[in-house]
Amino acid sequence: MSTDRIYNFNAGPAALPLSVLEEIRESFLNYDNSGMSVTEISHRSKWFDDIIEDAIARTKRLLDLDESYQVLFLQGGASLQFCMIPMNFLGNGDTADYVNTGTWSTKAIKEAQIQGKTIQVVASSEDKNFAYIPSDIQFTPNAVYTHITSNNTIKGTQWARFPDTGNVPLIADMSSDILSRSFDVKPFGLIYAGAQKNMGPAGVCLVIIRDDLLQRSPDTLPTMLNYQTFANKNSMFNTPPCFAVYTIQLVLKWLEETIGGLAQMEAINQQKARTLYDFFDASRFYSGTAEPDSRSIMNVTFRLPSEDLESTFVQEAYENGFSGLKGHRSVGGCRASIYNATPLQAVEDLVDFMQTFEQING
Amino acid sequence: MSTDRIYNFNAGPAALPLSVLEEIRESFLNYDNSGMSVTEISHRSKWFDDIIEDAIARTKRLLDLDESYQVLFLQGGASLQFCMIPMNFLGNGDTADYVNTGTWSTKAIKEAQIQGKTIQVVASSEDKNFAYIPSDIQFTPNAVYTHITSNNTIKGTQWARFPDTGNVPLIADMSSDILSRSFDVKPFGLIYAGAQKNMGPAGVCLVIIRDDLLQRSPDTLPTMLNYQTFANKNSMFNTPPCFAVYTIQLVLKWLEETIGGLAQMEAINQQKARTLYDFFDASRFYSGTAEPDSRSIMNVTFRLPSEDLESTFVQEAYENGFSGLKGHRSVGGCRASIYNATPLQAVEDLVDFMQTFEQING
Repeated sequence: MSTDRIYNFNAGPAALPLSVLEEIRESFLNYDNSGMSVTEISHRSKWFDDIIEDAIARTKRLLDLDESYQVLFLQGGASLQFCMIPMNFLGNGDTADYVNTGTWSTKAIKEAQIQGKTIQVVASSEDKNFAYIPSDIQFTPNAVYTHITSNNTIKGTQWARFPDTGNVPLIADMSSDILSRSFDVKPFGLIYAGAQKNMGPAGVCLVIIRDDLLQRSPDTLPTMLNYQTFANKNSMFNTPPCFAVYTIQLVLKWLEETIGGLAQMEAINQQKARTLYDFFDASRFYSGTAEPDSRSIMNVTFRLPSEDLESTFVQEAYENGFSGLKGHRSVGGCRASIYNATPLQAVEDLVDFMQTFEQING
Repeated sequence: MSTDRIYNFNAGPAALPLSVLEEIRESFLNYDNSGMSVTEISHRSKWFDDIIEDAIARTKRLLDLDESYQVLFLQGGASLQFCMIPMNFLGNGDTADYVNTGTWSTKAIKEAQIQGKTIQVVASSEDKNFAYIPSDIQFTPNAVYTHITSNNTIKGTQWARFPDTGNVPLIADMSSDILSRSFDVKPFGLIYAGAQKNMGPAGVCLVIIRDDLLQRSPDTLPTMLNYQTFANKNSMFNTPPCFAVYTIQLVLKWLEETIGGLAQMEAINQQKARTLYDFFDASRFYSGTAEPDSRSIMNVTFRLPSEDLESTFVQEAYENGFSGLKGHRSVGGCRASIYNATPLQAVEDLVDFMQTFEQING
């Protein structure tokens, strides 16, 4: 570990690859010989056009998207998507399915309901405090879409395999596990992800939308709430969040050229997660909170024997160079978010620290 | 001029103060001894809390805002405000006035109409291609608000004095002249401004809202489209665009501590604008397009004797280190955007170049 950088286990905004940060810093006063900072170039310039086109092309390659998908960059975070999805896709007489796996699913459901849309919550893991991912779900055959949260940042659970909804398109909030593993995109009609966990800084939301869903957006919507506005103008109907898109471009380049793609990234992420879960499973001091077959490889939630010990643990970990280990304020406990940019070494060093902490406090 | 930085006359995203860019670069790998980049810190951390609180406090001081105003940071740009304003403030039976002074006003009007809201366009300068700001307007006494665009980036016009609407609150899109001059905020119920001209990078929109308007927002709105969501959570209901807010904080600090406040900034801006307009008024080669009493001190629009000469001018200017002088694609001609961060020296050097260009091509 560098002497002035710490290990960052923040849940989001989160760690970015050091090489990406260094490249941004290096060119920050003069981007690509433009004589301007990347924050000062016009979004209508050749420079920014190259940035956004490269970001789109890399996203398409990494996720193996065919021509029926468009890659968009919106603002407002995943939270604005909660409202835009039912607004764009559910007309009178339409219905959609939602699976409730925690805080973010619950918010997505609320934003459909507040608009008076007809939806069914077809499964929920609320009975066990969202510690698992439901299975054997009866989906509604004529639903316009089925909404899931692929990874639950707060509860530390993740869909290991996506559910089979037949011909009904899946819509997934992948904010906290986008680009962390390989998966088949074909069942998905829309994927969205706030950038600030696996892709870039806060302030941009990736939206991947398939033509059949895009065509449902009615002309009567406000312009900035209609997906077609962004699709028709390549995300530049108005000024996009240029710096955030630029950072995403560099992270995607790092994923492709340094890591080697999603299969390689997934192998590293699996190893990081296994290192922590194996340690918990062998420990009587630390315990994971998610059910084993629903464990997230991105957000590892765990408890210590008491809240006092948890508080001491988080504080001493911080003093030893491990930041962001406090659980979400709504659930307490501890959490290590180990997104793409968190190196295996950070996890191994954390386990070493945890062993020492247990020896002293156990 | 530095050998590798150019003079940036972009309309937005636009020039930022060099000292601000240097400070961002300096701390980019380790913000305030956090061991993290400012793009990696949590928005729930003490570090970011200090950033956003300082940005709010400086905005309040610079604009002399009393306790009835809240300072918010939203995403989606001014374009999302076009839709949120009527959505939040106009119920059944309510009406609002709009003044149409160009492209952006026209878009604001459209977004109210697409929602089926009742509004009146009480004045328009479309009859003269938006080259002037209307006067002697008859406002509707019982309107909920009157919407204006304080500065028209594309047409190069600006309200020199704001209209008297009596007890009806003014709402202004100040995207392209916020913080460029002193003015009395009391008549305003809401002021909004995309950051990417006078305040920071693209990706954040400043919203200053007064309590009487804030209280109108109905509970039935989608959460992310309700101003109360942002007011109740200090702009952190969900993850804000942290890097953009941080840059704004530094620009506000520069305005207060380096420039000395809005009166000083206005004097510099007036001098920059006068340098160009006086030059045009004495020239038979260059001519300003806005009517003299409606001229913008931020966006100086002008023409040359022919479109061929304009094209040559923009190209040769660029080769000589003056970037961004092409007029907006919808109107043609030339435009020098001289926002706060553009130094007087840039304008003086531009006039020298224009004189030389005229001697050769005139």
